[in-house]
Amino acid sequence: MQDLDEFTATDAALAQMAATPDPRLKEIADAAVRHLHAFVRDVNLTPAEWLTGIAFLTQVGKACTPVRQEFILLSDVLGVSAVVNALHDKKARELGTQSSLLGPFYREGAPELELGACIARHPSSAQIVLYGQVTDNDGAPLPHALVQVWQTSEHGLYDLQAADHENMDLRANFRCDAEGRYHFRTVRPLGYPIPMDGPVGQMVRAQNRHGFRPAHIHFLIGAEGHRELVTALYFGDDDHIDSDTVFGVSGSLVVTAAEDPKSPVPGLKAVHFDFRLARAVEGEMGRVGADPARLAAE
Amino acid sequence: MQDLDEFTATDAALAQMAATPDPRLKEIADAAVRHLHAFVRDVNLTPAEWLTGIAFLTQVGKACTPVRQEFILLSDVLGVSAVVNALHDKKARELGTQSSLLGPFYREGAPELELGACIARHPSSAQIVLYGQVTDNDGAPLPHALVQVWQTSEHGLYDLQAADHENMDLRANFRCDAEGRYHFRTVRPLGYPIPMDGPVGQMVRAQNRHGFRPAHIHFLIGAEGHRELVTALYFGDDDHIDSDTVFGVSGSLVVTAAEDPKSPVPGLKAVHFDFRLARAVEGEMGRVGADPARLAAE
Repeated sequence: MQDLDEFTATDAALAQMAATPDPRLKEIADAAVRHLHAFVRDVNLTPAEWLTGIAFLTQVGKACTPVRQEFILLSDVLGVSAVVNALHDKKARELGTQSSLLGPFYREGAPELELGACIARHPSSAQIVLYGQVTDNDGAPLPHALVQVWQTSEHGLYDLQAADHENMDLRANFRCDAEGRYHFRTVRPLGYPIPMDGPVGQMVRAQNRHGFRPAHIHFLIGAEGHRELVTALYFGDDDHIDSDTVFGVSGSLVVTAAEDPKSPVPGLKAVHFDFRLARAVEGEMGRVGADPARLAAE
Repeated sequence: MQDLDEFTATDAALAQMAATPDPRLKEIADAAVRHLHAFVRDVNLTPAEWLTGIAFLTQVGKACTPVRQEFILLSDVLGVSAVVNALHDKKARELGTQSSLLGPFYREGAPELELGACIARHPSSAQIVLYGQVTDNDGAPLPHALVQVWQTSEHGLYDLQAADHENMDLRANFRCDAEGRYHFRTVRPLGYPIPMDGPVGQMVRAQNRHGFRPAHIHFLIGAEGHRELVTALYFGDDDHIDSDTVFGVSGSLVVTAAEDPKSPVPGLKAVHFDFRLARAVEGEMGRVGADPARLAAE
């Protein structure tokens, strides 16, 4: 009976997991154990700090509901999601539009609207138009691609954050035309802080971070035989464009609403953006992010 | 606007946390980010695997109740608690009895019994007696030290796992006499698997681990001016004495119930164990482990 010290405890844990039948589970669990143990040793974590960590993770779990995924938020603000996505994009580099975070506000079953419709039910600021084409990676149009969009209002809130959140707003699904073209009207979204009323918000405040995401519009685009594209367009004139709390901005996704003679709705400022979808790889999942409802279900 | 790759995302996350006012929080969060990101890179974590991880942590959070702390269990089976405790013991080496895991079955408010009482309400196997002395580190008795004990029954269950779990059983608090002596009767506990019906149990099964802890009796011992001692005595003849699923056994805590002419209850097999308490260090907490009720409370 050998007493375990802070190093042999790692060996003992790895030895106990050595018979894991699934080699990938073994690889991931081994790495998790090695990094967790090294983390504890690096900072010389005290029992009281360990307990604070346990309580924090428990609160994060408790904050998860059918419409809120606090663990995804934690992964996002620690930059973990960004690393997962960077690795994913590396495999797919130069294969289609850059992706971005799905975020916790995606909802299934948004209304399918006609091309050109306005997705804001009660716009109180000037409307803008977004338009472009969905193509494959060689620029060939993807007819009738499905374009799902969702965003905050001009006041910085998603419909899920409104009192009457049963009513969907500021989101819609569009079917592209036979040339893969889409266009719709909306209001310019406002940037917003991540949910600050939970344990993750508490952590972000304790780190003196502003907690804001720059203004953006989410897209989830699908076409048969192609990789589902989860992305977002970011407004370049937002104060937080270079300090997104969840590290979701990429240079190639930054846009501006501007006068545009080619706008399909003359008189409105326009954002022109063409999306390129890579070919599907069998059994592969798009990008990190999740339907909170599915995750939160018991 | 620089695009983040899997390495610069780490720099960006550290940069955003650079203004954290509490230096210790900064140190811990920095190390957590570095190790989490390195873990993701080491195993090249895919979006689907990331999502599995999010779902797993969410389920661990949901499994936490007022009487069950699944995050502590996760920390235990991954050996993280053992590392925290090893670091803690290193500071206190040769300063008192070796400590061990508190575990999730501690309850406050156990009945205070007279010295010599039996803590099992319905013993169905031979009783044994535990006895010894609580002293400081120089061997000077600690009069009236408080000895809290709890254990599984001869069938391997804690009272909290019984149908009538409102009634406390197999646990008690004892006041030592004026020489710091204690003795009480009980049944020999049976080893038991960790709770296998939750997400952590599922993981342990997927790792082909037996999930068992060797038979043991928990102790939480306090005396004014001394470090609270959280420990346990392990029965050396248990099949799992060398493969404890939560890495809690230390050689110095292994005991056997044997014939003992000095036993305070003649005719019963006895375990003789003297506990040594180190001097308290101001503001310090004993050891990892927690009152699940406090953690689970919203």
